[in-house]
Amino acid sequence: MNYLLINYILSRVVAIEGIFLLLPSLTGLIYGEKDDALVYSITAVICIIAGVLSGMATPKSNTFFAKEAFLAVSLSWIAMSLIGALPLCITGDIPHYLDALFEIVSGFTTTGSSILTNVEALSHANLIWRSFSHWIGGMGVLVFILAVLPMSGGSTMNLMKAESPGPSVGKLVPRMQQTAFLLYAIYFVLTVIQAILLLLGGMSLFDALCHAFATTGTGGFGIKNDSMAGYSTYLQNVTTVFMFLCGMNFTFFYYLLIRKVKDAFSIEEIRWYFGFFAGAVILITMNLVANGGRFWHSLQQVTFQVASVMTSTGYATTDYNQWPEFSRFMILLVMFIGACAGSTGGGVKVSRIVIYLKQIKKELLQQIHPRRICVIKMDKKGIEHETIRSCNVFIMAWLAVFLVSAMLISLDNVDTTTNFTAVLATLNNIGPGLNVVGPTGNFSEFSYFSKLVLIFDMLAGRLEIIPILILFHPATWKKKA
Amino acid sequence: MNYLLINYILSRVVAIEGIFLLLPSLTGLIYGEKDDALVYSITAVICIIAGVLSGMATPKSNTFFAKEAFLAVSLSWIAMSLIGALPLCITGDIPHYLDALFEIVSGFTTTGSSILTNVEALSHANLIWRSFSHWIGGMGVLVFILAVLPMSGGSTMNLMKAESPGPSVGKLVPRMQQTAFLLYAIYFVLTVIQAILLLLGGMSLFDALCHAFATTGTGGFGIKNDSMAGYSTYLQNVTTVFMFLCGMNFTFFYYLLIRKVKDAFSIEEIRWYFGFFAGAVILITMNLVANGGRFWHSLQQVTFQVASVMTSTGYATTDYNQWPEFSRFMILLVMFIGACAGSTGGGVKVSRIVIYLKQIKKELLQQIHPRRICVIKMDKKGIEHETIRSCNVFIMAWLAVFLVSAMLISLDNVDTTTNFTAVLATLNNIGPGLNVVGPTGNFSEFSYFSKLVLIFDMLAGRLEIIPILILFHPATWKKKA
Repeated sequence: MNYLLINYILSRVVAIEGIFLLLPSLTGLIYGEKDDALVYSITAVICIIAGVLSGMATPKSNTFFAKEAFLAVSLSWIAMSLIGALPLCITGDIPHYLDALFEIVSGFTTTGSSILTNVEALSHANLIWRSFSHWIGGMGVLVFILAVLPMSGGSTMNLMKAESPGPSVGKLVPRMQQTAFLLYAIYFVLTVIQAILLLLGGMSLFDALCHAFATTGTGGFGIKNDSMAGYSTYLQNVTTVFMFLCGMNFTFFYYLLIRKVKDAFSIEEIRWYFGFFAGAVILITMNLVANGGRFWHSLQQVTFQVASVMTSTGYATTDYNQWPEFSRFMILLVMFIGACAGSTGGGVKVSRIVIYLKQIKKELLQQIHPRRICVIKMDKKGIEHETIRSCNVFIMAWLAVFLVSAMLISLDNVDTTTNFTAVLATLNNIGPGLNVVGPTGNFSEFSYFSKLVLIFDMLAGRLEIIPILILFHPATWKKKA
Repeated sequence: MNYLLINYILSRVVAIEGIFLLLPSLTGLIYGEKDDALVYSITAVICIIAGVLSGMATPKSNTFFAKEAFLAVSLSWIAMSLIGALPLCITGDIPHYLDALFEIVSGFTTTGSSILTNVEALSHANLIWRSFSHWIGGMGVLVFILAVLPMSGGSTMNLMKAESPGPSVGKLVPRMQQTAFLLYAIYFVLTVIQAILLLLGGMSLFDALCHAFATTGTGGFGIKNDSMAGYSTYLQNVTTVFMFLCGMNFTFFYYLLIRKVKDAFSIEEIRWYFGFFAGAVILITMNLVANGGRFWHSLQQVTFQVASVMTSTGYATTDYNQWPEFSRFMILLVMFIGACAGSTGGGVKVSRIVIYLKQIKKELLQQIHPRRICVIKMDKKGIEHETIRSCNVFIMAWLAVFLVSAMLISLDNVDTTTNFTAVLATLNNIGPGLNVVGPTGNFSEFSYFSKLVLIFDMLAGRLEIIPILILFHPATWKKKA
């Protein structure tokens, strides 16, 4: 194992986090929260110094094998979270460190589940740090490092693979660094446009920034106790659009950028994403209208809510916990499906679901016509066996983590629906679930043991399980025989 | 498509069902239920005549391709159910035909879910038909036909494959017919031994037969409103043992029969089955004791209950719906896992779960040591790629059917837990779920639409999904171009 290389990456992550911590520090200064500003500033400075110093030990080889990449990414995310929780705890807004850790892991992993019962009591510094953590985690901090710091030589592909969601990494351009840069550029522009549109709708700069961070990162931390229910329909609709956009495969925007509009809309995953989204919106709206809802109002609310949970953002403008069972089920279903691969969203991912469906279809055809050769295609190209295999292992690992987590959480003796949806909401990085952890509830009632399990789930979900499981495999830490 | 061959098989199934119908007819006579006896006798005679007549059109070729085998099996099960429901309905005990169909499909598929609110009101003829249907469906009616009627030539392997549960068919002896015969012989002997042990415990002959049928078929229809709670501890324990035995891969008994005791206990699936079973019993007992239960009493109840749901029987001696959440979760988990392949039980099957776990383990090792060649083994032999593929497709198809069914059922607006566990209980052929469909509840409150969905699920679960899905694929019915 190339420990020096992993140390090198970790150092950079810590230093970058130090730089990121200057934003809440500045915010604290502006709003006259001197103590908070001080806490953030000190943490920032320590991070930057520690990162730079420990980063001086340069590794002999820059080559990342899959194992090193997975470890580097997993450990980076853990380190980032352990540090990021500190100011939340030290400023006293979240007194228990494990609660603060839960909150910031929920931030970085763009989950948006909260243990807070009163968000509005937080200082501006802490609020913006929470929301900003979504933005940092959304596209991935290692992708950021790849984008802004040159990495001489080495196969950085593996790093990107380990952090980017989806069954396979789509390189936009041949060079990895350029791809990373392009992704961040698109991400940044989307954030800025949304912030401007929110400002135009009368939101304050602070609120607009927090919401833009949390939307483009598909995180969903609100800064009001009623999430987004209190905002105007315009502001809600702007958010709907940006949630939807950020759940799309970013290749779509790249194609738009290079003016291949037709190609953009013919990406198969994008079409399925539109299909699932439209299907869910139509079915839920019909169900609500059948149960006495007004059509236009229902449609607006449902569009917001489906965009919110499908992209794994998790904002709420209405308590879907009170919806009829069919609509509640549909919400769970889109939570399971999730956003596109190569987006900032979570979940199993649209492309994987499509690959599963195509495998079922192929199996049936193969049984009916045993001699026919069927190939599973995506975007008119046969999918590599390797990709299918990793998709299949993913769903098994997902199910295993889901079931074991639900088993552990059930020791808290909450009701079955809360239990299962709490795991679903964290493992798929959504935020709220149903019942106790529904849109109007929160995760404060769970024991610290359960919170640890859910922290694990959030990280496992964001990094798509395998990198995190590898951390716990003894063979990872064994020296070669 | 060889329609004549399918017709030939269907005719035999109908004729055999006619013969089976003589048992309730006889029971009716003995208990002086003249009307019921008449109904059963007439149905029996019509079946036998119709079966023999339509079976006279012999097919030119006896060769079963996978498609024909799947179709023959699916259509046989549907025909069997449509006919089997008639007497339940005509005798007036279950007035609505769809309810009767639900009940008999639940019987044949060894599910044991009931729409009856008062089982004790049924006539003896109807009661024994319900219980006997478990026995018929447990080992499979086509396996029975293979065992007792010579099928000249042809690849009957495909027929057996389509009806027997598990990822691959284990032939006990080289000839298929002999294998089928051996399986039924073991099955018959187990049934007789259990019936004798129940009689020794003071059960009446009628009760003993009903319970022996329902236990060895892992069905679980009770003939009392409190399922098995009212019987003595001895009778409950006998049932525990036989439920557990019938959830085992029947290869185990074959090895015992030919005195390869060591080989029997070294079957890998059997070891895992013991492991899952013991793990669940220990954990639930600990949980109940921690919540104030008495140790020995809890252990006895838990052993019964875990054996009941894991083997997909579904008897109850206690209302596990009232257990603490952890125990309820564990019940759901063993429901999901299910019994061994090659048993009479349902569920995903132990061997598949083991293959999934081994795939996860392999993936992790492969990522850590990319150059190592890992082979997934079972019983010390590498598993064929084909078997792994079909296991993987199975879990996807299972999930798809599970989710779509839960979506459709949710239109009834029952609570989320009832909704999900009703589908789990029928798709895995268990019987009871949680909440409304818990051990003290029943399926009577669902709409007829939902009952149809659940009927589909029971059949899909028993035939392991693919054969039933093929029925609905347009390519199955298309003529060759």
